[in-house]
Amino acid sequence: MYAGIEAGGTKFVCAVGTGPDDLTAVTTFPTTTPKETLDLACAFVADHSADLRGIGVASFGPVDLHHSSETYGFITSTPKPGWTDTDVLGPLRKVADVPIGFDTDVNGAALGEARWGAAADLESCVYVTVGTGVGGGAVVGGQLLHGLLHPEMGHLPVVRHQDDDFVGRCPFHGGCLEGMASGPAIADRWGTPAQSLKGEQLEQAVVIEADYLAQMAAALTYILSPARLIFGGGVMQLEGLLEALRARLVEGLNGYLDVREIIEDIDRYIVAPAHADNAGVLGAIALADNAASEPT
Amino acid sequence: MYAGIEAGGTKFVCAVGTGPDDLTAVTTFPTTTPKETLDLACAFVADHSADLRGIGVASFGPVDLHHSSETYGFITSTPKPGWTDTDVLGPLRKVADVPIGFDTDVNGAALGEARWGAAADLESCVYVTVGTGVGGGAVVGGQLLHGLLHPEMGHLPVVRHQDDDFVGRCPFHGGCLEGMASGPAIADRWGTPAQSLKGEQLEQAVVIEADYLAQMAAALTYILSPARLIFGGGVMQLEGLLEALRARLVEGLNGYLDVREIIEDIDRYIVAPAHADNAGVLGAIALADNAASEPT
Repeated sequence: MYAGIEAGGTKFVCAVGTGPDDLTAVTTFPTTTPKETLDLACAFVADHSADLRGIGVASFGPVDLHHSSETYGFITSTPKPGWTDTDVLGPLRKVADVPIGFDTDVNGAALGEARWGAAADLESCVYVTVGTGVGGGAVVGGQLLHGLLHPEMGHLPVVRHQDDDFVGRCPFHGGCLEGMASGPAIADRWGTPAQSLKGEQLEQAVVIEADYLAQMAAALTYILSPARLIFGGGVMQLEGLLEALRARLVEGLNGYLDVREIIEDIDRYIVAPAHADNAGVLGAIALADNAASEPT
Repeated sequence: MYAGIEAGGTKFVCAVGTGPDDLTAVTTFPTTTPKETLDLACAFVADHSADLRGIGVASFGPVDLHHSSETYGFITSTPKPGWTDTDVLGPLRKVADVPIGFDTDVNGAALGEARWGAAADLESCVYVTVGTGVGGGAVVGGQLLHGLLHPEMGHLPVVRHQDDDFVGRCPFHGGCLEGMASGPAIADRWGTPAQSLKGEQLEQAVVIEADYLAQMAAALTYILSPARLIFGGGVMQLEGLLEALRARLVEGLNGYLDVREIIEDIDRYIVAPAHADNAGVLGAIALADNAASEPT
């Protein structure tokens, strides 16, 4: 049995299990101070430590994933107050002497969907979440994608939609993808939260949002060429958005990539997550499984 | 000893050797009809077949890289007249009974630079060529990046530079990266070939070109996060372009990625290829080496 910890910016979700069919003891608490929050996570692990073969942590970031680094397992330069340079793994190691997997929340979700969900049996996928922010994780050749750092796909440059005069709200880049397409960007543009949009305004919002997300989907297709793109997160609940995104990607590629899996099977190329409600904690369980299976 | 064949759209380059220090018998011939050109490639291989442990082909594309496909080893839907659906590997297999590696020219170049050049000892790199077209290949976790198809990085969406009114010349996308930043795009924009630009026009051209290439570098950094970006090809010979590209990337990231390897060491993050003059044929040798080393 594994313990999975989804360390989110607003809440932590903990559970034990081995996959989507046997998740139990699901426990949720708000993300307050590092001490208070990690103490609760450690108590959860301690409660179940007798049965654990591994722990997985899928964390908000940025995080340090370099095993050779002195700050491996830390949340690093996050804008979240109080959490800069927080050692997440250190306290957990003291509670249970088992392998611990650690990665970003979106890499965890990508791994979970590749193992048990929308990308099962595929060699590669990208998991994108569109909500308070825009982020993405990727599995390539069966492995999580890491480089100098973990992917930070939310900040891709995007071409402004012709009918959009919103300036963008990314503090670093103004009108990058996250600055134009996150939930708060939609709320700022229309003066109302995304989930309250109705009628013509909703239609227009979907057209513009689909255009930005399709630029991301195109960049991912051109650079990574994954077998499947999984789009999750609250914003993807907008009525018609998934369908509009698919159509806009095919339109944008404009016949350049004549690949059956993309053009003819677009409904299977861009999909919703299979485990949207617990993508994070399932991802953490998948990370635990990876850690426990690695040669030591 | 290996035979390397760089199958380019305008010329083929063949050589034998094991790496950059012992390339011999370098032979070049123009790319004419498939029959005539492949006959010459086969004759080259036949001349050296007694000593060969493997053959590598780094080809213009698009190509079929799926080993299980009936058209594996084919150039597929290329716009190059006469070359659509050309079996490249078939004729070579009849000449020499050795393992044959096959990939795109840019993936070959990325592998060659990762093995012997600008990205030696690194786990990941991207090789970008900016010339008649714009293309890229990538090594991730020591392996060439493949997905549904090989990367087609040249067609990334880009944001128009504020001082640029050129419409773009990509037949599919108009103002995508290749449409705005290839050598022919520069020639169309300024009414003179890139290598003839001088004075103020050259300065302006470099500013605009650096902006487009920096958008590509940013997308690669956000999505793949490679340890090094290698920019080669004829357009990169423009005076000051490499330096301008580095500066524009750092400016565009605007402090978001606080990673020493990128920000402080930008001169080592974006570099010229170590083997610019024979990147293609060396890549082919690297592909041969990979093929010969694989378990059969």
